[in-house]
Amino acid sequence: MKTIRIGLIGTGYMGKAHAIALHSAPAVFPLSANISCEMLAEINPALAAKKAAELGFKRSTGDWLELVNDANVDVVDICSPNYLHKPMALAAIAAGKHVYSEKPLALNGQDALEMTLAAERAGVKTLVGFNYAKNPASQLAKQIIANGEIGEVVHFRGTHNEDYLASPLIPMSWRLKRAYSGSGTLGDMGSHIINMAQFLVGDITQVNGDLQTVIQQRPIADSPGQFATVENEDQAHAMLRFNNGAIGTIETSRIAWGRKMGLTYEVTGTKGTIVFDQERLAELRLFIPDGNTAREGFKTILLGPEHPDYKNFCISAGHGLGYNDQKIVEVRDLIEGIANEQPLWPDFRAAYKVNLVIDAIEESNRLGQWITIIEG
Amino acid sequence: MKTIRIGLIGTGYMGKAHAIALHSAPAVFPLSANISCEMLAEINPALAAKKAAELGFKRSTGDWLELVNDANVDVVDICSPNYLHKPMALAAIAAGKHVYSEKPLALNGQDALEMTLAAERAGVKTLVGFNYAKNPASQLAKQIIANGEIGEVVHFRGTHNEDYLASPLIPMSWRLKRAYSGSGTLGDMGSHIINMAQFLVGDITQVNGDLQTVIQQRPIADSPGQFATVENEDQAHAMLRFNNGAIGTIETSRIAWGRKMGLTYEVTGTKGTIVFDQERLAELRLFIPDGNTAREGFKTILLGPEHPDYKNFCISAGHGLGYNDQKIVEVRDLIEGIANEQPLWPDFRAAYKVNLVIDAIEESNRLGQWITIIEG
Amino acid sequence: MKTIRIGLIGTGYMGKAHAIALHSAPAVFPLSANISCEMLAEINPALAAKKAAELGFKRSTGDWLELVNDANVDVVDICSPNYLHKPMALAAIAAGKHVYSEKPLALNGQDALEMTLAAERAGVKTLVGFNYAKNPASQLAKQIIANGEIGEVVHFRGTHNEDYLASPLIPMSWRLKRAYSGSGTLGDMGSHIINMAQFLVGDITQVNGDLQTVIQQRPIADSPGQFATVENEDQAHAMLRFNNGAIGTIETSRIAWGRKMGLTYEVTGTKGTIVFDQERLAELRLFIPDGNTAREGFKTILLGPEHPDYKNFCISAGHGLGYNDQKIVEVRDLIEGIANEQPLWPDFRAAYKVNLVIDAIEESNRLGQWITIIEG
Amino acid sequence: MKTIRIGLIGTGYMGKAHAIALHSAPAVFPLSANISCEMLAEINPALAAKKAAELGFKRSTGDWLELVNDANVDVVDICSPNYLHKPMALAAIAAGKHVYSEKPLALNGQDALEMTLAAERAGVKTLVGFNYAKNPASQLAKQIIANGEIGEVVHFRGTHNEDYLASPLIPMSWRLKRAYSGSGTLGDMGSHIINMAQFLVGDITQVNGDLQTVIQQRPIADSPGQFATVENEDQAHAMLRFNNGAIGTIETSRIAWGRKMGLTYEVTGTKGTIVFDQERLAELRLFIPDGNTAREGFKTILLGPEHPDYKNFCISAGHGLGYNDQKIVEVRDLIEGIANEQPLWPDFRAAYKVNLVIDAIEESNRLGQWITIIEG
Repeated sequence: MKTIRIGLIGTGYMGKAHAIALHSAPAVFPLSANISCEMLAEINPALAAKKAAELGFKRSTGDWLELVNDANVDVVDICSPNYLHKPMALAAIAAGKHVYSEKPLALNGQDALEMTLAAERAGVKTLVGFNYAKNPASQLAKQIIANGEIGEVVHFRGTHNEDYLASPLIPMSWRLKRAYSGSGTLGDMGSHIINMAQFLVGDITQVNGDLQTVIQQRPIADSPGQFATVENEDQAHAMLRFNNGAIGTIETSRIAWGRKMGLTYEVTGTKGTIVFDQERLAELRLFIPDGNTAREGFKTILLGPEHPDYKNFCISAGHGLGYNDQKIVEVRDLIEGIANEQPLWPDFRAAYKVNLVIDAIEESNRLGQWITIIEG
Repeated sequence: MKTIRIGLIGTGYMGKAHAIALHSAPAVFPLSANISCEMLAEINPALAAKKAAELGFKRSTGDWLELVNDANVDVVDICSPNYLHKPMALAAIAAGKHVYSEKPLALNGQDALEMTLAAERAGVKTLVGFNYAKNPASQLAKQIIANGEIGEVVHFRGTHNEDYLASPLIPMSWRLKRAYSGSGTLGDMGSHIINMAQFLVGDITQVNGDLQTVIQQRPIADSPGQFATVENEDQAHAMLRFNNGAIGTIETSRIAWGRKMGLTYEVTGTKGTIVFDQERLAELRLFIPDGNTAREGFKTILLGPEHPDYKNFCISAGHGLGYNDQKIVEVRDLIEGIANEQPLWPDFRAAYKVNLVIDAIEESNRLGQWITIIEG
Repeated sequence: MKTIRIGLIGTGYMGKAHAIALHSAPAVFPLSANISCEMLAEINPALAAKKAAELGFKRSTGDWLELVNDANVDVVDICSPNYLHKPMALAAIAAGKHVYSEKPLALNGQDALEMTLAAERAGVKTLVGFNYAKNPASQLAKQIIANGEIGEVVHFRGTHNEDYLASPLIPMSWRLKRAYSGSGTLGDMGSHIINMAQFLVGDITQVNGDLQTVIQQRPIADSPGQFATVENEDQAHAMLRFNNGAIGTIETSRIAWGRKMGLTYEVTGTKGTIVFDQERLAELRLFIPDGNTAREGFKTILLGPEHPDYKNFCISAGHGLGYNDQKIVEVRDLIEGIANEQPLWPDFRAAYKVNLVIDAIEESNRLGQWITIIEG
Repeated sequence: MKTIRIGLIGTGYMGKAHAIALHSAPAVFPLSANISCEMLAEINPALAAKKAAELGFKRSTGDWLELVNDANVDVVDICSPNYLHKPMALAAIAAGKHVYSEKPLALNGQDALEMTLAAERAGVKTLVGFNYAKNPASQLAKQIIANGEIGEVVHFRGTHNEDYLASPLIPMSWRLKRAYSGSGTLGDMGSHIINMAQFLVGDITQVNGDLQTVIQQRPIADSPGQFATVENEDQAHAMLRFNNGAIGTIETSRIAWGRKMGLTYEVTGTKGTIVFDQERLAELRLFIPDGNTAREGFKTILLGPEHPDYKNFCISAGHGLGYNDQKIVEVRDLIEGIANEQPLWPDFRAAYKVNLVIDAIEESNRLGQWITIIEG
């Protein structure tokens, strides 16, 4: 069996999640290739070595370019801050490597398109870490919709709200600067719910949004009494029109007190409704009228072995899945797509469509009108 | 003690709810006046007499004008279809009667303004049946916000979704025709969530909305094979900007499968969040960070005797309130306002502001841009 | 149409609930008789007069025996402390009056049997205020079970927990003394869940329980520094065996922090399961396997017009019912039973069976073994 | 760093869960030793070899005794059917190996005691797979109780109900025969909730239970028309008395329609209440009265980095944990206990106490009276 060798760049929040998934996936799923955690890059050699030991990687480097060009790395796995996705991905593509990147793919649609076209021209595989679409509950939602079980979708309401920046005492960081992060909550969390809307309902053709920076100044860490100006939005919402005629809204906030993993959606069709809340990630609520109104109601479906991918984790229903399990499904997709030379989703093009929607929401906010999305 | 004599017009859904509340209120609340269910009008004398017996009214008539002009009627209580609110209210005002009207007040802002000015000039009391704002849970939400417990409000998301027209087999009716109902779901249910937004967050200054008629033809009742064109929207959503700087969205649908009383809201402030669902009408969820993140979470507060109006229904917490209990609170407000010559809310002016928002949402939908609301 | 004239004794918590229901019922339900709130008794004439004015009763007295023997009282409605139920009911029966009594019927089974036999011999109607069985949601549960929709019942788990005595600072009261209240939480709240078990599953034949008084001393009100000994249990649970072969447990507590109206049950059958929580009194959860395990789950059924009694309150589903609405159903039953000379449930005999179960649980606690219930 | 070499026996449901955890744990937690998946035993060499490849074990054997005696195996990990736990564990102990066994430890207390004493005499480490006690949510519950945040525990109610045998069409299996499984649902799932009760509240001193086999005959697989007699109970409940004076109940069923992972508990103390449901495994509900009754309610705490072990999985709150994550915590405990020569919990003695409680519940069922538990 072939071995696919991974080179991981970045070992923060997402880097660790990738490492756990890379080690777990082979025991969970029957894979078409072995995984080798080949090399790890961090901002200096010492940190890289330490993290490689912790996360089970064979080699390490303080220079990500060395990793990208290493002959024994097949996949470049990018878990760095957003503004570095582009140079790293372009270098990896130039070196003929497959790319597994965290989201959002780029700071804007223009950059994302450039990366997409480079990958398409080079013929390398790409996968972007919109892991919530890998949650078996959301795969089930997709399946129910695709089967026509709720009829034609007529409305979508999605949110991705968290409160990690709700306190005005939290200091300035790269995520709050346009040059490093692009948009604010729209790129960070909004990208997930946009991707989910596209996954479940299809392409978005027009948007009209409203953005707001509520906490306009934040303290500078380690500089008592000094403040910096926040450069991107704390909260945003937008109206959506989908290609298939459905309409909807999305909302995203990084200052929504109480919401910890507030990715939610409600999809209404002509024959039923699906409701989901990622804070209860292993259940899906489903309403299908069956003619007996005295016994109708939303069903709470607990994930089980009949649902997508669940049985590989556990053969008994209702035993629960966790955040890292979504990443294991994502890694499975990555390995299977590469080993069997099959399409991956969401690839760079799919992620570019997310960036396009973010750009259009920002433009609609500037112009106060609907913006039509035109794919490059 | 003075007696306030009620003349009820219309005995459908809302007429019965009013009757129940008029009979119950004196046993629930210590009132400043007695209530007399004086007279009832229906579309013909026989039906009126039958309904008067059923609903406990002393006299009846097949002519609403007779009721309006009856010397022993102090308050004209209007529970007729929407397009009749205006002529009935204007006649009542002309006769010097106080008016208690169901919502929406009028088919459009222009009519509502005319009614408002007439009432203000005549100096009669008016109250409009936005009963969800009388729910003690929503009064509690208002109190929490007014106290500053969640800080400054920064975001509001509201819905009022039901599924009573979700089946395409449900026939055409007056609610689906512009001349009789004005807007569709926006006036019928959207008016409630707009009123709630204004109640909780304050005046709305700008809106930008999207409307859609999903089921464009409906069967004509008792005419097999014949269809009529639906003239107003099945679903709508809008972005809102409030006078105090908060932003938000509302959503309303009459085709949202599974939602039976889907009035919900989430109000996010700089210091906390409130979440409410009218399908669980006697509880409110509240998140206030208290510095101990290891013990923070949304609290589910069950209504109890410390909350507004609850103890008059029951002295033990958590025993539950029902739909009709909201109407009892509303009737209490009506009687107290008249007996003590105090302001009532929501009066015709408050209801006019709801109609203004609906008109503006419709206009934003036509023009594809933000509409500023200008009060007459 | 006949008029049924009510004489109400006691105007505390339950007395007011009865008054509200007596005034509301005629507008909610088409009744077979008129209701007259004829007379009210309280512990002295002044209080009685004040309460009669507040609660809408025509006449009043400081002597309950006068009310019982008043020629214009048809039904004696007993809302006094538990130890007075027996003398009042026996006097009413002796005077040929129908009796509507609050629960528990008596301090023990012996007294309850005496009252039952007296009523049966006199041929008067009796009804006992186990109002939770009148909740349309529990009527629906009963209907589902009776239809065989969950097959044969094999297990019942019920609770009625509240926290109104959880604080040790709450002073001694009549409820905590055997001579005035009989058992503690078993009679006060346990009686409701026992009645519910009998309503839903049928007769209980054997019990085995454990009782505990956790807060053994309580302060004496208005006597700083003085304490009295609590004479009955704070918490109890018991195992049950039903006549139909099902087994189950009940649990009751008056010191269960956080529980405000914690009457809950889960009924498991050979073909499905019902789950209910009175804190969400207008919904029922139902699981019926339908062969498609990938779409199975508990359905949350919101009460609506297809369910027992709901449509008289509101014709739209999901709009919610309250605590007082249960009492309105109970009053409807009372009036219909008397007017149409039909059986009432739960009558004194049904309530006697509740007292029998309580006595048997207490005995099992003393003896440490199963006790068989023998009806007198 | 030392390497601990694991020999896994059995690759069914639990065997795979162990394998996933053994591979994932090093990336999740900083461990004090390396883990080597050294050897795997199955019922024949071919299956063993296949499973070793799938689950990432280096070597395999069709003879578990060979594994037990292999010089390169440090820990014998027993995931076989219940009746094999004893011979395998005794052989492992005799060979001086540490033992990691699935639950229940033995078919009865006598066997469990023999195993416990053998391990204690040999001085090997033991750990039994009561993984639900490793869930960070239940660790949090334990912490809250240990801190005294809910005061003294006065009541415990626990369930572990599932529906995997609810259908009478499910055929006979080893789990339903006393010689292979011992008790029925009590050992299989009841053992978990008994262990949880002991974990949270402490030693159980007296029990009194009721057991029932509802489906007494089951079809024999592959033998159409033939049935076998079920030899152990489908459902059971028991009353408990704890050493610290608290009382409680447990309930367990394998025929509880709709329950998939129905391990739940409610722990009531003199100062608050904890509620947990394993079907929502990453949240805990907590009620602590704080003097402001108008703002009190159960808090839904989502697990986050301040709670036990969570931050090793994810540094953001509310992102969710899964079933396999509990096993990762368990493996962390195993490795740390062995590497650092520290006590493990639940070891064989703790698991023996679970078996003792099961035996006592069975005896109380036979005798119809309370049974006092006496530790050997």
